[in-house]
Order: sequence, then structure tokens, then C-alpha cells
Amino acid sequence: MRTSIATVCLSGSLEEKMSACARAGFQGIEVFEPDLVSSDLTPEEIRARAERLGISLDLYQPFRDFEGVTDELLQANLRRAKARFEVMARLGIDTILVCSNVATATIDSDEVSADQLRQLGDLAAQYNIRVAFEALAWGRYISDYRRAWRIVQLADHPQVGTCLDSFHILSRGHDPAGIEEIDGEKIFFLQLADAPEMSMDVLSWSRHHRLFPGEGEFDLPKFFAHVLRTGYTGPVSLEVFNDTFRQTASGTTAVQAHRSLFTLADETVRRFPDTARTSTIARQQTPTGLDFIEIQAEDTRDVEIALEQLGFDFRGQHRTKRVRLFSAGSARIVLNEQYARGVEPAISGLGLLYEDVETAEQRIEDLSVPRVPRPMLAGEQRLPAFATPHGPQLFLAAAPEAGTEPGWVEEFEHGFEPATAPHIHTFDHVNLVSSWETHDETVHFYGGVLGLDKGAATEVASPHGLVRSRVVRNHSGTVRLPFNVLPPVHQRKTEHIALTSDNVLVVAHQARQRGMEFLPVPANYYDDLRARFDLDEEYVDLLQSHQVLYDRDSHGEFMHFYTRRIGGVFFEVVQRFSEYDGYGADNAPVRLAAQSRLDDAGR
Amino acid sequence: MRTSIATVCLSGSLEEKMSACARAGFQGIEVFEPDLVSSDLTPEEIRARAERLGISLDLYQPFRDFEGVTDELLQANLRRAKARFEVMARLGIDTILVCSNVATATIDSDEVSADQLRQLGDLAAQYNIRVAFEALAWGRYISDYRRAWRIVQLADHPQVGTCLDSFHILSRGHDPAGIEEIDGEKIFFLQLADAPEMSMDVLSWSRHHRLFPGEGEFDLPKFFAHVLRTGYTGPVSLEVFNDTFRQTASGTTAVQAHRSLFTLADETVRRFPDTARTSTIARQQTPTGLDFIEIQAEDTRDVEIALEQLGFDFRGQHRTKRVRLFSAGSARIVLNEQYARGVEPAISGLGLLYEDVETAEQRIEDLSVPRVPRPMLAGEQRLPAFATPHGPQLFLAAAPEAGTEPGWVEEFEHGFEPATAPHIHTFDHVNLVSSWETHDETVHFYGGVLGLDKGAATEVASPHGLVRSRVVRNHSGTVRLPFNVLPPVHQRKTEHIALTSDNVLVVAHQARQRGMEFLPVPANYYDDLRARFDLDEEYVDLLQSHQVLYDRDSHGEFMHFYTRRIGGVFFEVVQRFSEYDGYGADNAPVRLAAQSRLDDAGR
Repeated sequence: MRTSIATVCLSGSLEEKMSACARAGFQGIEVFEPDLVSSDLTPEEIRARAERLGISLDLYQPFRDFEGVTDELLQANLRRAKARFEVMARLGIDTILVCSNVATATIDSDEVSADQLRQLGDLAAQYNIRVAFEALAWGRYISDYRRAWRIVQLADHPQVGTCLDSFHILSRGHDPAGIEEIDGEKIFFLQLADAPEMSMDVLSWSRHHRLFPGEGEFDLPKFFAHVLRTGYTGPVSLEVFNDTFRQTASGTTAVQAHRSLFTLADETVRRFPDTARTSTIARQQTPTGLDFIEIQAEDTRDVEIALEQLGFDFRGQHRTKRVRLFSAGSARIVLNEQYARGVEPAISGLGLLYEDVETAEQRIEDLSVPRVPRPMLAGEQRLPAFATPHGPQLFLAAAPEAGTEPGWVEEFEHGFEPATAPHIHTFDHVNLVSSWETHDETVHFYGGVLGLDKGAATEVASPHGLVRSRVVRNHSGTVRLPFNVLPPVHQRKTEHIALTSDNVLVVAHQARQRGMEFLPVPANYYDDLRARFDLDEEYVDLLQSHQVLYDRDSHGEFMHFYTRRIGGVFFEVVQRFSEYDGYGADNAPVRLAAQSRLDDAGR
Repeated sequence: MRTSIATVCLSGSLEEKMSACARAGFQGIEVFEPDLVSSDLTPEEIRARAERLGISLDLYQPFRDFEGVTDELLQANLRRAKARFEVMARLGIDTILVCSNVATATIDSDEVSADQLRQLGDLAAQYNIRVAFEALAWGRYISDYRRAWRIVQLADHPQVGTCLDSFHILSRGHDPAGIEEIDGEKIFFLQLADAPEMSMDVLSWSRHHRLFPGEGEFDLPKFFAHVLRTGYTGPVSLEVFNDTFRQTASGTTAVQAHRSLFTLADETVRRFPDTARTSTIARQQTPTGLDFIEIQAEDTRDVEIALEQLGFDFRGQHRTKRVRLFSAGSARIVLNEQYARGVEPAISGLGLLYEDVETAEQRIEDLSVPRVPRPMLAGEQRLPAFATPHGPQLFLAAAPEAGTEPGWVEEFEHGFEPATAPHIHTFDHVNLVSSWETHDETVHFYGGVLGLDKGAATEVASPHGLVRSRVVRNHSGTVRLPFNVLPPVHQRKTEHIALTSDNVLVVAHQARQRGMEFLPVPANYYDDLRARFDLDEEYVDLLQSHQVLYDRDSHGEFMHFYTRRIGGVFFEVVQRFSEYDGYGADNAPVRLAAQSRLDDAGR
């Protein structure tokens, strides 16, 4: 697969964009004309720089409003084209993207457009340039790739082919199966973009909200399979207009973009094995559970106290590191005081369990996720560690046999045996924060790279603005990771660990007896519960006396309570009844308001 | 006019919202249920606090998914309603908003909905509560205000009336003229919201992008006139869900919101004099020109040098202040070194000319725009000064007679006489920056308050993201203020002053001879000009040799050049041919990229 990317996807100057693409491993780029016009490098300098960086200049784009015009305008357009071809010759680019006319077309005729493209092809032939004609979704007359292909066939010129762009085809809801009718030799270029599901005008959607493959909701593997079946062997390129990527560091975006092409290729070959290409990356694995959560701080004492109040057992001190282990059931929490000068308690690591940890590790490496070096001594279990886009480190471990603990637990000494019948059994979910810049990439990382499923995007109100949220999880629900994007004025990044209990009220009662202070829940909340759910009066009183929150939907019921914040982390204990599969989202604004009150009071 | 606002419009806790509304001058508020539920104040405390603040609690909202349901569900819904009525009794609120059912309705019948609302009315009567029924734009069966009114008529219950919300009516494109068919006594509540023109799903549009009246594109004066003609005398309230207001300081937002109701009332009475109410604010005036621009800095020497290179005359030093005046034609630039310790050159003041400056001043004061105290000595011309939402101060001055200078110019001494035939004549436009938080408010400030017209929103690409832009101007074009919202990573706020010339090439030539360095324009730009416009080769060479940029549209031509940045300000000299009315937007990315290169190079 020859990978390519349009310079418009990235921020910075043309030089910065070129360097970022080369470093990320792209083989080529599309030169976006305004990037060229704004650059103070000459075309010859750009060509030389590309050669030095080892990237090809695959496409010059876009050339607008060419066909469907009067004869007079056609002559002017041919003059415009000639000037572009001369610049392309200086750049050494052999393919130009010609978009269907959106502004100046006055003749709605396949024959006229074909004839005018044929004249363009004659001119292009003098420069050895190929014309890739593309139907824009908002083209005045030509907005369907099938019509663009019909016109290319009519033009019947060796220098004139078509360009396919997944956005223009899928955003209009056009069936991509028709791609297989196209001669692969006449597909001169392929541009891929994903997008979230939104109903807005297609031009704004396209200009602002495109995403890299796998980050949105389009079925790109199916689309790509159709293209591969035509025999297309040209560049597989990305053209993604996105307000966020325009603002964020081009280096990171380029790596994310490059990775998205490989997860796409992988997903395509997995779902459509008949498509000729084989994936070059290791097969996707699905995590079967959470091995442990690591919390790092200069001083982890307050976290220890909270864990003991919740009924966790101290399992020991690491043989060689300033690291301590606590557990309740299979919920293992590691407290790390190393390299933490001045650090408040925060989630610093997630251990994911895989059946086939070697393949999972290979895949992550194949997708250029940076490794994190971890000092390790002889006799310690090796846990491969990687950087995540949102901060904490990721560890991979083999799932232990049922009823046993992972081998690394033995590296901890001088602790207690775990309780035999704890009321906390396991991790329910880990609520993590991603920045607006990294949110889509993070969700794709846990999805396409690590093998979790992506849920729908939701949002909840906080006193300081809306919190956007999206859950990634495995099918069985043993790994659930809601990722939140906080509004900009939220000063403190706060994440939390939710634990599954078979009796929330007992855990809350015992924790209070051990001195725990809970997040205070306002009395109005319980009045509202009574009004909403027609609950038994005494039951609501019981919930209120334990500051336990409640939710119900058509699948079941949910009870949960929150501890107070310790640095950047707090705990939640939850109990699910029947098939309740949510997270008590209706209660989140109450929790956020209560936390905000404590913050304002300086507690 | 009784003014009110829904608490959901503002950020912070319920207490903070209530205080902000009272301080801004609102007479009442709508209590948004989730704000109550999240509050740790009891209903009695909230009521007492409202009394102390002098605001009424006008509406409890929303009550959802009540009518169109099975008998069994109706009984549950009546129980839910009873619990709400009890809370309302504690709060002392006498009106509840009932939205048309979006989720649980299964019966699409006017009679059934009317009958169920009648039963709700009977229950409400026991609490002396009024039910205001509203058609949500996305109601399952009832999404049109005319149908909601038909159902209220059918219900025929003294406690059951309707609520009108401009968003739900105008977003669906429903004709608001039908409002006049409604009995004003039966309109129990009025909610107003504006919105930008967007084509997206109406629910997302409503939940995220509502604006205060005058900030969007709805014709709210017309809508409001229809309501007034029914004889409605209840609260005029704002319900604006907006992602930005949820995040920004509630005090500022409340003032902005309150102001928007008065500019709306004013505009309504101006356009529809038959509507009974008279405006309580002074009549809108239109600025006729720019009196002066003030630039403030600890050291203004570099600005002086640039002005002299451009051909400005030094007009003198102020008699008593560390302020110097330069002029070219009627473009007067004041350089102020007072109170500027450590300040880099930046635009700090704008003088607007009005025919009737007293009325203009009165209006600004009526709309609660804060005054800025300016120390003034005897014999100096009084220039009323106000704070703007985007930073610089605003000064008002009476337009001088044609061919004369304003009186305050005489306060400057020891300067030169102005040149008789300068090549720079006047200000063309002043390009200002507003933050994303204040952009809509700023545009409304210059529009609804100061009397300029708002243009369409546009955007241009910069190396660090998209720059959103909107122009406010007077009809004749003697005042033109483009406001830009910069992407977040733009470190430097940069504004610029554009000057009108009758010969840009001569100004550029003379400036270069006087040692000015221009913003360098890349050679690719001129190659692109040749390709785009089919211009004479020698003409393009001439432009290039002076680093002058060019644009053309169907109305005329445009030539312009930029100086380098001096602190946070730079100059542009422009020449308009025929009816060209734009700002060379296609050239802006080239300018932004060139500035970015200079920044990176530390120049």
C-alpha cells in the first residue's frame, strides 16, 4: 500500500507539513495549492526537499470550476490550467485533481463536460500530466461519482481518469458498490476520509468535521474493499479537513493519520478476505479484562486510607521499587511513589489483559505506538509498556487462569492475604479524561489499535460547561473506559476508578464506620428521585442516609456512591441489577456540581 | 417589560446564577430543574434568596413526556407531576412548563392530549399552579405551536395555557403570524432565543447553538411584534442553550443577555410602531465615520517611524498628556504612552463619529455599557468613553463639518500642518480580534448597541487553524470593522489598521525609499496571480516589486500591501477600484503564513 496524505490535513508551514509526513512514514503527499501559494519555497526547492525527505509529490489539488462552461470561459480555464501545469512541471507532479464545477457551470451535459475534459487531457498530455476528475458532493451538476465516471468514459482520453473520495460518496449516501464497475486503471487517485454522524449541510460537514479512517462512522473498510476489487494500485491517500487537526501539532497528527491507514487496511482484509492485499500488521486482539490500575503520587497515603476504608487489602510492598499493591477481588490497584516529586495522586497506568499478549504487543508496535522504557530487574515479570495519546501508560499482560492472580503479584512482599469474600469484586469502569485535541485519536487508539468497541458520543452538563463523553469497552463489559472531554475552564483534570460491588450499601456503611467522608449529595436529589421513580419512601431514606445515588432504565437498576477527590483521582462503588448497562449519566451533573462546591470551598 | 431568564443559560451554581441575574437587572428567572436538583439549597432557601435578591421565580421547567400516553402511564405521570407541584409550592412558583412528549407518546390525538392536559390542570388547580404547554420542535407528535394552541383550546381549562418559544417556532420555519390568533391571556409564558443560520439537526442546533436576541439570524422583532399584538403582558424570558455561555462567567453573560432584550424591544418598536410598548432606551444612531484610532505602548517610537514612512504628518504633542497625534487625510492616529508600562504597541481606542452624539451616548448608557473614567482638564473636548467587550475603549465624538477637523485636534501643539494632497485619505477598515467567548457579544455590541450592520460570518485558513471573521460596518462603508476569532494556538493577538489610498504603488514606493520593510510576499503568490487572473505580465512584475497584493471580483479590483508587525499592530494600505467591496480574503492566508514565518524567525 502506497500511503499518501494531503497537506491540508496538517497545521504549520508547507516545510513543517512535509517533514511531519516523512517522519510519520508516509510515502507521498498531495500538495494543496494554497499551501504552495503561501510558501516562500520555490517549486524547485519543494521538489528537492521532497526528494531529500524521500516522499513523492503525488497530486496537485484542487483545480476548480473547469467544465460545464461556455466556450469563452473554457478558453480562460484552459489558460488557467496551462499555468498550473507549468507549476506542476517545476514540482515534478504528474497528476492533478479536477473537481466538478460548483460555481461557473451553466451547461448540464455529460457530452459537454466530457468534451471539455478531453480538451484538458490534450493540453495535459503535452506536460505528461494525468487529470483525475472528481465529483464533489456539492457540485452544481455533477455530484455523484457514477456520473463523473460516465463522463470520464465519454471523454475517452488516456490522460483523463477519475478520483474517488470516500467523503463525497458516503456523505451523500451513494452506494459505493458501483465502484466495482470502474476500471481500476482509470482510477487515478483515491482519497479517504471518515466523518462523525451529523446532520448538517454537507459542505460544512466536509470542511470542518472530517476524521481519519476509523475515527468516524463511515464504513470505510467496505468502501476500500470495493476500490481494491477494481485492481487499483495507486496511492491510498488521506484528505481530512478538520478544525482540530489544523490547530494541533503536525507531527502527532501525521502519526495518527498514518496509523489510521494501517488499521483500515487491516480491518478491510479481516472483513473482506477476497480483497487481494494482506495486512502487514498483526491481527487485532480483544482485551479480556483490566489487570491493574496504577496511581502515581509523591505521597500516596491518602489513597491508601481511602482504599482501606473501601475494604481493599494491603497486599505488599514491591521487592525493589517504591510501589505498593492493594486488592479487592480482582481489582488490583498499584500505588507508585517513584519519579513523582511534586505529583498529586493521578491515574498513571492501565494494565490490559489479553489471551494472546504477544500478538497484541506486535500489533501495537506495528502501528508505531511509542514504547515506554521501564527499568526491570531479573526475575520480574515483563510487562510491555506503551504511551497512550491521553497520558497514562499502557501495560499488556496475559490473562491469568480463572481464580488465580497474575504472576507479578508475587513480586510484592510483607502484605496480607486477600479477604475471601470481599464486597468489591472487580473494576467496573475507569473514567478517563482526554483533551479535545486528542479525543478522537484516543478513541481510535483503544478501538482500532487495542481492539475495544466504541460506543456512541454523549454529553452531560457540569457547572462549567458540557462534558463530552464516549465509552470504549469490550463486548462482555469486563473492560469499560469512558473518556471525557472537559470544558476549557475545568481547572483540574479528575479521573476516577469505579468498582463493582454486590452490596453498595454495606460497602458505604463500613467505609463510613472506618471514617470515610463521601461526596455530599443534596437533599433535592432525593426529592427528585421520589418524584421520578415512585420509589418506596424508606428505600430512598436508606439511599440518602448513605449518600448513595440511584438510576433505573428499562434494563435494570443501578446504585452507586462517590468518594471525595484525592488529588486528581476519586473512587466510585457501583452495583448493577439485572441488565443495567449504563453509568448513571443522569446523576453525573449532581456529582459534578457537588465536586464543584467542594472545590469552591477549598476542600 | 418584565424581563426573565432561564438558569440554564448561565454557568456556575444556582446561587451564582441567581446573583448574576439580579445584578444584571433581570426581574425574574426560570428555574431549570437540573439546577435545582444539583443544588444543596432547599427550595425554601432558594425562595428566600430570590426574595432578598428582589427577583421572582417565574417558571419551573421542564416537565417532560406527559401527554399522548396510555392510561396507565398517565397515572404515573400525574404522580410525577404531583411531586413537582409540591416542590413548586415550596419554591413559590406558580407556572410550570410542560413540553410536548418526545419519548413516551403513543397516541397521536388532539382530543387525548387535551383530555390529559385537562386532568393535569385539575391537579394543578389544587396548588394554584398554571400549566404552560409548549410544542417542542422535535416533539414526537406535537411539534407545531399552532397544534399546541389547538390542544390548549380543546382542553379548555383555566389552569392550562400555552408557552411560546421563538426557537421551536422559527427553527422549523413555521410562520409566526399565526401567533396573533392566540388569546394573549392564554399565553402563559414567552421564551426567546436567537440562533445562527445552520443546517444541522434541530435538536443539536437547539442544545448547543442558541444565541441571545440580535446575535443570530432569526427575525425576532417580527416574532415579538406578533406576540405583543395578542396583548401578552407576562414575562419576556430568555432560554438560550449555548456551549459557550455554559463555560463563561455568569455575570458577563447575564449583562449581555439583559441588554439583548432591550435592543430587541427597541428594534421591535422601531420596525412595528403599532406594537403597544414604547422603547425605554434612546434611539439607535448610526456612526458616520471613524474619528481616530488610539495605539498605546510604553514606547511608540517604532509606530511613529512606520507612520512617517507611510506619509503621515506629525500633528503635535498633547498640551498636557503624553499623547501624540499623526494624520493623513482624515485618518487620525493617536499614540498614547500613558499608563503603558511594559505594554507593546496595540490598538487601545476607537473614536466613532455620530451626527447626534448625545443620543448615541444615552443609548449606550441605557444598555448598561460600563463607562471608562478619563481624566480631563478644563478646556479639553469631552469625549464620552465606554468599555467594549473585546478590549479597546470606545469614544464618541460629533462629526466635524465637511473639510474641517474635530475640535480636539487643537489640543495638540508643536506639530506640522497637514499635507495638502496626501496619498492616504482615510481609514478603510480596522481589523480587530475578539475571543471566542466574546465574539457574538462583540458583534451584537457594534450592531444592536452602536448601530452598525452585521455582515455574514466567513473564515480564512492560517497555518495554525481557521480564523473566523465577521464584519460590522455602516452602509456607506466609512466605518468597517472586521472582527476575527483566532485559533487557540495563535500566541499573539495582532490587529491592524487599513488605510485608503488613491495610489498604493506610490505609497509603497515612497515608504520603501524612507526605509520601510514590508511583509514579504512569496514568489509563488505572483505565479498564482498570473494563473488566476490572466493579468498583464508587466503589471504583475510591478506588483511583485512593491510586494503589493491583488484581488478582483465581479465588482472591481483591489490592491493592498502590509507593513511588518510592530508589537500587536500593523498597517495595511489599500486601494479600491470600481465597486470592489471586499477585503482581499483570498490573500489573507498568504499574509498569515508570511507573518508566521517572521514570527518563527523571531523578527
